[in-house]
Amino acid sequence: MPAQVISGKEISAGIRAKLREEVQKMQEEVPGYRPGLAVVQVGNDEASNVYIRMKMKAAEEAGMNGRHIKMPQDTTQNELVTQINQLNADPGVHGMIIQLPLDTTQPIDSHLVLNTIDPAKDVDGLHDVNSAKLARGNLSDCFVPCTPRGCLELIKSTGTDVDGKNAVVVGRSKIVGAPMSELLTWNHATVTVCHSHTKNLDQVCREADILVVAIGRAQMVKGSWIKPGAVVIDCGINSIPDATKKSGKRLVGDVDYPEALEVASAVTPVPGGVGPMTVAMLMQNTVENAQKALLKYKASVWNISYLPLRLKTPVPNDIEVATAQTPKNVDDLAREIGLQPHEVDLYGKKKAKVSLSVLERLKDVPNGKYVVVTGITPTPLGEGKSTTTIGLTQALGAHLKKNVFACVRQPSQGPTFGIKGGAAGGGYSQVIPMDEFNLHLTGDIHAITAANNLLAAAIDTRIFHESTQTDKALYGRLVPTKDGARKFSPIQMRRLEKLGITKTNPDDLTEEEVADFARLDIDKSTITWQRVMDTNDRYLRKITIGQSPTEKGITRETNFDITVASEIMAVLALTTSLADMRERLGRMVVASDTKGHPVTADDLGLGGALTVLMKDAIRPNLMQNLEGTPVFVHAGPFANIAHGNSSVLADKIALKLVGPNGFVVTEAGFGADIGMEKFFDIKCRYSGLVPHVVVLVATVRALKMHGGGPKVTAGAPLPREYKEENIGLVEAGCSNLRKQIENALHFGIPVVVAINGFSTDTESEMQAVIKKAKEFGAFDAVICSHWANGGAGATDLAQAVERASQQSSDFHFLYDVKLPLEEKIEAIAKKIYGADGIELSEQAQAAINRYKSQGFNDLPICMAKTHLSLSHDPERKGAPTGFTLPIRDVRASVGAGFIYPLVGTMSTMPGLPTRPCFYDIDLDPDTEEVKGLF
Amino acid sequence: MPAQVISGKEISAGIRAKLREEVQKMQEEVPGYRPGLAVVQVGNDEASNVYIRMKMKAAEEAGMNGRHIKMPQDTTQNELVTQINQLNADPGVHGMIIQLPLDTTQPIDSHLVLNTIDPAKDVDGLHDVNSAKLARGNLSDCFVPCTPRGCLELIKSTGTDVDGKNAVVVGRSKIVGAPMSELLTWNHATVTVCHSHTKNLDQVCREADILVVAIGRAQMVKGSWIKPGAVVIDCGINSIPDATKKSGKRLVGDVDYPEALEVASAVTPVPGGVGPMTVAMLMQNTVENAQKALLKYKASVWNISYLPLRLKTPVPNDIEVATAQTPKNVDDLAREIGLQPHEVDLYGKKKAKVSLSVLERLKDVPNGKYVVVTGITPTPLGEGKSTTTIGLTQALGAHLKKNVFACVRQPSQGPTFGIKGGAAGGGYSQVIPMDEFNLHLTGDIHAITAANNLLAAAIDTRIFHESTQTDKALYGRLVPTKDGARKFSPIQMRRLEKLGITKTNPDDLTEEEVADFARLDIDKSTITWQRVMDTNDRYLRKITIGQSPTEKGITRETNFDITVASEIMAVLALTTSLADMRERLGRMVVASDTKGHPVTADDLGLGGALTVLMKDAIRPNLMQNLEGTPVFVHAGPFANIAHGNSSVLADKIALKLVGPNGFVVTEAGFGADIGMEKFFDIKCRYSGLVPHVVVLVATVRALKMHGGGPKVTAGAPLPREYKEENIGLVEAGCSNLRKQIENALHFGIPVVVAINGFSTDTESEMQAVIKKAKEFGAFDAVICSHWANGGAGATDLAQAVERASQQSSDFHFLYDVKLPLEEKIEAIAKKIYGADGIELSEQAQAAINRYKSQGFNDLPICMAKTHLSLSHDPERKGAPTGFTLPIRDVRASVGAGFIYPLVGTMSTMPGLPTRPCFYDIDLDPDTEEVKGLF
Repeated sequence: MPAQVISGKEISAGIRAKLREEVQKMQEEVPGYRPGLAVVQVGNDEASNVYIRMKMKAAEEAGMNGRHIKMPQDTTQNELVTQINQLNADPGVHGMIIQLPLDTTQPIDSHLVLNTIDPAKDVDGLHDVNSAKLARGNLSDCFVPCTPRGCLELIKSTGTDVDGKNAVVVGRSKIVGAPMSELLTWNHATVTVCHSHTKNLDQVCREADILVVAIGRAQMVKGSWIKPGAVVIDCGINSIPDATKKSGKRLVGDVDYPEALEVASAVTPVPGGVGPMTVAMLMQNTVENAQKALLKYKASVWNISYLPLRLKTPVPNDIEVATAQTPKNVDDLAREIGLQPHEVDLYGKKKAKVSLSVLERLKDVPNGKYVVVTGITPTPLGEGKSTTTIGLTQALGAHLKKNVFACVRQPSQGPTFGIKGGAAGGGYSQVIPMDEFNLHLTGDIHAITAANNLLAAAIDTRIFHESTQTDKALYGRLVPTKDGARKFSPIQMRRLEKLGITKTNPDDLTEEEVADFARLDIDKSTITWQRVMDTNDRYLRKITIGQSPTEKGITRETNFDITVASEIMAVLALTTSLADMRERLGRMVVASDTKGHPVTADDLGLGGALTVLMKDAIRPNLMQNLEGTPVFVHAGPFANIAHGNSSVLADKIALKLVGPNGFVVTEAGFGADIGMEKFFDIKCRYSGLVPHVVVLVATVRALKMHGGGPKVTAGAPLPREYKEENIGLVEAGCSNLRKQIENALHFGIPVVVAINGFSTDTESEMQAVIKKAKEFGAFDAVICSHWANGGAGATDLAQAVERASQQSSDFHFLYDVKLPLEEKIEAIAKKIYGADGIELSEQAQAAINRYKSQGFNDLPICMAKTHLSLSHDPERKGAPTGFTLPIRDVRASVGAGFIYPLVGTMSTMPGLPTRPCFYDIDLDPDTEEVKGLF
Repeated sequence: MPAQVISGKEISAGIRAKLREEVQKMQEEVPGYRPGLAVVQVGNDEASNVYIRMKMKAAEEAGMNGRHIKMPQDTTQNELVTQINQLNADPGVHGMIIQLPLDTTQPIDSHLVLNTIDPAKDVDGLHDVNSAKLARGNLSDCFVPCTPRGCLELIKSTGTDVDGKNAVVVGRSKIVGAPMSELLTWNHATVTVCHSHTKNLDQVCREADILVVAIGRAQMVKGSWIKPGAVVIDCGINSIPDATKKSGKRLVGDVDYPEALEVASAVTPVPGGVGPMTVAMLMQNTVENAQKALLKYKASVWNISYLPLRLKTPVPNDIEVATAQTPKNVDDLAREIGLQPHEVDLYGKKKAKVSLSVLERLKDVPNGKYVVVTGITPTPLGEGKSTTTIGLTQALGAHLKKNVFACVRQPSQGPTFGIKGGAAGGGYSQVIPMDEFNLHLTGDIHAITAANNLLAAAIDTRIFHESTQTDKALYGRLVPTKDGARKFSPIQMRRLEKLGITKTNPDDLTEEEVADFARLDIDKSTITWQRVMDTNDRYLRKITIGQSPTEKGITRETNFDITVASEIMAVLALTTSLADMRERLGRMVVASDTKGHPVTADDLGLGGALTVLMKDAIRPNLMQNLEGTPVFVHAGPFANIAHGNSSVLADKIALKLVGPNGFVVTEAGFGADIGMEKFFDIKCRYSGLVPHVVVLVATVRALKMHGGGPKVTAGAPLPREYKEENIGLVEAGCSNLRKQIENALHFGIPVVVAINGFSTDTESEMQAVIKKAKEFGAFDAVICSHWANGGAGATDLAQAVERASQQSSDFHFLYDVKLPLEEKIEAIAKKIYGADGIELSEQAQAAINRYKSQGFNDLPICMAKTHLSLSHDPERKGAPTGFTLPIRDVRASVGAGFIYPLVGTMSTMPGLPTRPCFYDIDLDPDTEEVKGLF
C-alpha cells in the first residue's frame, strides 16, 4: 500500500484559514488591532525576494499587517541594529525576522544581529534565549523555529503519537536539524541526530519510526533506508536537471520520494510538503504572539517581585531604613510593570525616564482607579500625607497584589540642605533610593532653572538692546541678511501673526510694522518674570541688577524665587504632550508692553529653545518604594502661588500602566482646601481625568491643635495635651475634619479618612475620630500604621479605598471657568474656605480688569493662601467662620494656565537656618554612601 | 578481558596539577593575580555544604581564590540578584556558580537567577546564552557545563575518537544529559538521547560505542545492555543498602559496574569516576576564564564597530551632518571598549557615566600614549582645535584601527543659546548626538551650579546670623542639644582642629573658644566666592543683594559668574578621586576673616554636602564621535581664570582603557601659551601623567592674520588676502607658529603641526607652513581635511602622531612650584609669552604677600591673560617682543589648587546678542528632533 501523502499545502491552508479567523476575533475585541509581521532584508538576494513575497502574501491573506523593510546592500551593522531596535520598539510589530542570508557589502555579525531582536518578537526562534529554552525543554515559553514546528504539525497530522517513538533527524543545522531534534526530544521521542560524520547512515535511518531529513542532498534517502511504516518528513529543496521540464530542471527533496512512497506509511512531497508549513508557522507564531500581546494589553495583574521588609522596633531614622533595603534595578521594575525597553531611558541603575509614547501604545486600555491623597489643615505636628501616599501603595501592591502606582512630586533641593531635609515619605513608607530622590534626580528642576533664567536674561537684555538701537538697526539684527537672503524664523512668524502682519518677506514691512515687530517696548514695572535658583538663598529676595558699567545704568530691582515657584514648573506639571508644552511655554506672559499688551516668551523668540531645554524633563521619572512597587516622581510646583500637584503626564501614564483593575495614588500639597481643590479644579480640568476616591489624612495630635490645643514650638518639649488622652480636644478639632470632608464631597467624590496613628494616640481618641468622620459623611475612616509597619500597616486603608473606588461617583468642578474671575474667586472662598465673601484691593481689581481685557478671564483660579488655616489667618485653626477673604493682588500664569489671587504675602524664597542640615551631610568616599540625609 | 577502569580521580588530579601550574604562570606575569571562583549558596542544604567544601578545597589547592557566599534561608530573590550582580561586577571573580538546589523559604525564580549571572562568568554553563551556544555548536565561545565536559575528557582519555561514533546518552537533564548530547553531537558523534519515555532502552543502549548514563537509577544499565567494547561513562551517584558497610549503605552508579566491566572496553567507577571530574572542570573553566581576562587585561585591540561616513559635498551644516549619522547605543560602545556593565551608568541610550572603579580594576595595565591638542594664538578666523581633536581620534580609530579615546570639555550651555552655538567639533568630525552634548549632558554643570550657590548662600546667611546673635546663641544653635546630648558633627571637628582646639565635648569649650568656633567673622570686602548661573546673563555682572527687609539692611555688592568659571568646575577637572574631591571642596577659600585668615567651605560646614552634590558629576561621561570611537566629555573649566582643560579623571580612565598601544587625545583650551602651558604645569602636575605628543593646530588664514593681514569683522565680507594666495603673509605669520612650537619644546615633548586645510588655501601656502614648522623644530607637519572628510582626512596626521609617540621624550615642568610666586609668574611671562619681565601692581603684590603668609606659595600658577595675543594686548599678533607683562591682581583657587594672576580685566559673564541663536532653536514635537542648533 503506497504511503499517505502528507500535503503541507492543504494542512497549511487549513492553518492559515484558522489564523484568519483568529485575527478577525481579535479585531472584534479591539477594532483596528492587527498582528504585525516585519521582515527585514538587506540587499537584493533573488531567492529572498521570492520568499519574502510569499510571506507578505500570506500575512495579507490572514488579515495581518506585513511589513517588508528592504535595506540597501551597503547597510552597516549599526544601521541594521538601529532598524531592528526600532521594530523592537514598535507596538504594532508582533513578530520580526531577518531574512537570511544577508546580501551585504559590509561586515555584519549575523549572530549579534539575530540577538538584537527582542526575544519576545523573535518569531523565527533564532535568538539565543529562544534556542536555550527549546534545547532545555522550556517549550511553553519560547518561539520554536518555523520549519521544525511545521514538521511536527505534519507528523501529528498523520495521527502519529511522537511520545516514545524512535525518531531520527538527519541534519543538525541551526534552522532545522538542531531545533527539530530538540522539539522531538521534548515531545518525548527517542531522538538520534545524524549528520555528515555519521557512519552507516542508512542503518540508523532504518531504525526510525519518524524520519526527518534536512541535509540538503537531492534524493539521498532511498526507500531501503526507510523502516516500513515510518513517517518520513522531507525538508530538502533541491533543483535537479529534468529534460522533460520547460525550465530544464525540477525541485526534489532529500528523500527519494517515489521509493519512499512504497515503504513509508506517510511521506511529505516536495514541493507542497514542508515548504508551505514554514510560512504558515511563521504566521502562527506571529498571530499567537499578537494574542499574547492583546492579553497583556488588556492589563492583567503585573508579575512583579515585591521587596519584603524586615521591620525594626523602634523604627530607625529614615536614611537607615532606606539604605537597609536594596532596591530592584529599575530596568527590572520597568519590565515587571509592562514597559518596553525602548520606552525606558535609564538614569543610572535606580531611576529611569519613561517615554510619553506609552500613552499612544496603551491608548485603548481603560484607566485604573484614580486616588488623591490630601489632608486636614496642616499643623507643625504634621499629618504624614506623603508617608500615607507611599504606605497606601505599598499596601495595595505588596499586600493586596493590585497593580498600583504612586505619583509624587519631586522635592526642591533647597530645603533638603536647609531645615526640612528629604521628602521621600518616612519610616517604612518611603521612596528609594532616598538620596537619589532628594538630589538632582534626573535633572528636571535644573532644566527648569536653565529655561527660566534664559528667559529672564532675554528680557533684560532685550530691554537693553532696544534702549540702545534704532528700530532699523534692531530690525536689521533681528532679521539679518545671511548668504544674501533675509528671512523670518518660524518663531518670528508667530510674532508677525500676533501683530496681524501677513507679509512674509522681511523687506516688505512698513516702517511702522518694523517698529511694531522689532520693539517689544517692555514696561519694566510690569515684569512678573523672576530669576530662579533651587537653593535657599534669602539674600536674593530682593536685589538690584544691571549695575555693571557695561549695562549703562539701566538697573532694575527684582528678586530670585526658588525654582519650584517658576511658572515653567507649573507648565511641566500641567502639560499633556510635547506639542502642548511648546505652546504653553511660548505663551507665558512675562510683562506688559507700554501699551498694556502682554509680552510672551514667543515674542522674545524663546518658546522653541525653552522646549528644547525641557524636552527630557517632560518624561516622568520612575522609581520604587520600600516594598518594590513603582513610583513616578515628576514635577513639584510650589503649592502656594502654583497648584502644588505632581504632573498630569505621570498620572496619565500610570493610569494606563496599572490598567482598569489597578490604582494610581497621587498626592495633593497642603490641606484639602488648597491642594485638593486645585487638584480638582485645575489639574483634573486640564487632564480630563476623573478621580475615584479622596483619602483625607488626619492625626489625633493635629486635630487636638485644631481643637484648641496649645501652640507648639520647634525645639521645645511637646505640651502634654498631645501626649495624653484628651477626647475633648480631639472632638473639637474635628471641625476642621468636617469642613475638609465637606470640601471633598463638594466635588462628588467619596472620602476615606486615614488616621495616621502615633504611639501616643489612645484607642478611644482614634475611635472618636472614626465616629466623627463617618457622621460627617466619610465613606469610611480607618487607622493606619504604615510608618511603623510599611504596607502591612495600611491594608485596612487599602481595602477601604478599594471599596470606595467601586462606588459610583458624580465628579464635577466647583465652578464654571466662564464665570467672571471675581465670581470664581468668591466661589472658592465661600464654599471651600467658609468665608462670607471676598474683598478685592484696588490693585487686585485693576489686575482682574487687565486680565479680562487681555482675554484671560476664562482661566481657572489658583488661590495663593496660607495653608495653615482654612481662612487667610494662619492662627485660626479648626473651621473658622465669619470672615471676609482679602485679595491683595491678582497675577496670571498664562502658560501654566491659571490666575492666582494673592491672599497675604507669600515668600517665594526660603532661607537657611543658623545650622542647616548640610552640617551632617557627607559622603563616604569608599562606599560612596551618602550620610546624614533625613 | 575486563574493561579498563577510567579513573576520574587520577585524571582529575592530573588536570588540577596542571591548573596549579597555569595559575603560577599567571602570577609570574602579574603578581598577585589569582583566578577567583565564587560559590553562592542559599540556605544550608547538607549535600550542598559537602560539595561546596570540595570545591573550595580544590580552588585553594590550585592556588585560586575560592569564595563561599552563604546567604540565609530567607534571602529574597532581589537580595540574591543583588549579590550576583555584585559578583558580576567584581573583577576578582572569574567564575561564579549558584549552588543548586536553593534551600529557601522565599519564592525565587531559579531560571531568572541563573540568567542574572554574567554569561562571561557562568562557569557552570547554565545561562541561556551559554546553553544556546552549546546547542547550536558555537563551542569556541561558550562555557560547557562541568559534568559533560568532564565526561568528554574521560572518554578522550581512553583514546576513543568521538567523531563518527554512535553515542547514546541516557537522560536529558539540564545539567548533564542535554548538554552532554550536544557536546557529543558537535564533536561529531551520532547521538541518540534516551529518557524515561524511551522504549526498548536496552536495545538502544546496545547500539552505543559510547554510552553516557545520567538517569539517577541505581545500577539500571546491565552488562547485557552494553555493546561489547563500548566506552561507558556513569554519571549516577545513588546510595543503596549494604549490610557489609559500617554506614549500612554504599554509593553506586546508574550502571551495574561489575557487569559492565565484563563487556565494555572502559568504564568509570562510582565513586572516583565522573564525580572528581566535575570539580576539576569547574576549576578548569574558571582558570581558562581568568586567562582570557588576563589577555584582555593586557589590552589587545578593541573589537569595536565603526560607523562609516557617507560624505557629502559641500559639507552640510553641523546639525545635519550629526543627525544623518545614527550613533551606536552607548552600552554597546561601552562593552566594545572593555567596560563592564556595573561600571557604566546609562543616561538614556547615548550617554553614560563611567565609574572610577575602572582605575582600580585596570591599575596594572600600562597607560596608552597621551596626546594633547593645542593651537597657535587664536584669531576670529578659528583654527579648529576641537574639530582636529575629534578628527584625529576618528583617524586613529576607524582608519588606523588603534584603541583611541578623545577627551573633551563639556561646553557651557550659556553660549549655546547666545552667539557661539554648540561645541561638538564640526563638519565630519563631531561628537554625537550633538544636541545631547550641548544641552544638560548628564547634569554635571547643573550640579556645580547647585553646589556653588549653596556655598554662596551659606556665606551671606552666616554673616547675617552672626550679625544678629550673641556668641552663646550662635554656639547653641550650631551645636544644639539633641535627645539630651550635645555633639560636634564630624565637619565641626575639622574646624576645631584648624583652630587647634583638642576638646571634643561641646560643653568644655571656654568662652573664647566658643567665640572662635562659632564666629567666622567674614570680612565682607574679601569675599571672592560668587554665585553662578549657566546662562549668558549680562545683567548679573554687578548686582546688590540682601535688599529685602528680612535681611535687615545687610546688603552687599556682588556678581554672578557663568558656572564654568566656578572654582568647583576647576576642582572637578583636577581631582583624582572622590576622597581627593572631598578635601579640595572643603578647603576652598571663600573669603578672609577680619584677622586675615582664610575662611573655607569646611568652616561653613559644607565640604561634605558639596561632595554629595558632586558625587555623580565626578564620573566621566561617555559619548562617541561620528565614526563611532569613544569620547569622554568631562569638566569644562573656564580657560581664563581657570586652567581650561578637561578632567584628569577622564584622561586617566581613558589611558587605562586604551592600553599601552592605544591613544588618548585631549584638547587644551586657547593657544599653546595658555591652554597647553596650563595642561603641562597644572593638569599634568596634579595627575602625574606624562604626555607623549603635542599636536599644534594652525590654519593658513589665521597665520596670515598673524603675519599682518587685515582685521576681520563679523558679518563683513572676508578681505581678499584671506582668499587668495599670499605666501608673504603666511610666512610672516609663522612667527607665532615658531613661538608656540618653541613653547611646546620647552616641556620636552615632540610637536606635530596639523595644518587644518581650507578650500581657499593653496598648496604653496600649505607647503610654506610645513617647511617653516620643520625648521622651527616640529617633529612633523601635515595637512588635514577631517572637517570635510572625517577621519580619512586626518590619517596622515594620525600616522605622524603615532611616529612621534614612539620618540623618546624628556618631559619636565616649566618651573619648580617651590619658587616664590613672583618668580613662577615671571618664568611663564618670559619663557612662554616672550615678555621682558613682569610688573606687579600694588594690589597684586599685596595679594601675593597675603597668599604667601596663608601658606599658599607652593601652588602652581594659572595665568588669566587674553588668549588673542602672546602678549597682554589682544591687538598684537605674531610673536610680540619687548613688552613687560602687567599683573593687575592675584587671586587664589585653593581648592582647585592654583594661584591666578590677572593680566587685564576678564569678563566672567558673557551676554546675549540682539538676536541670540535661540531664535532658530525648536523641537519637532512629533519626531522629538532638535532643530536649529549649530
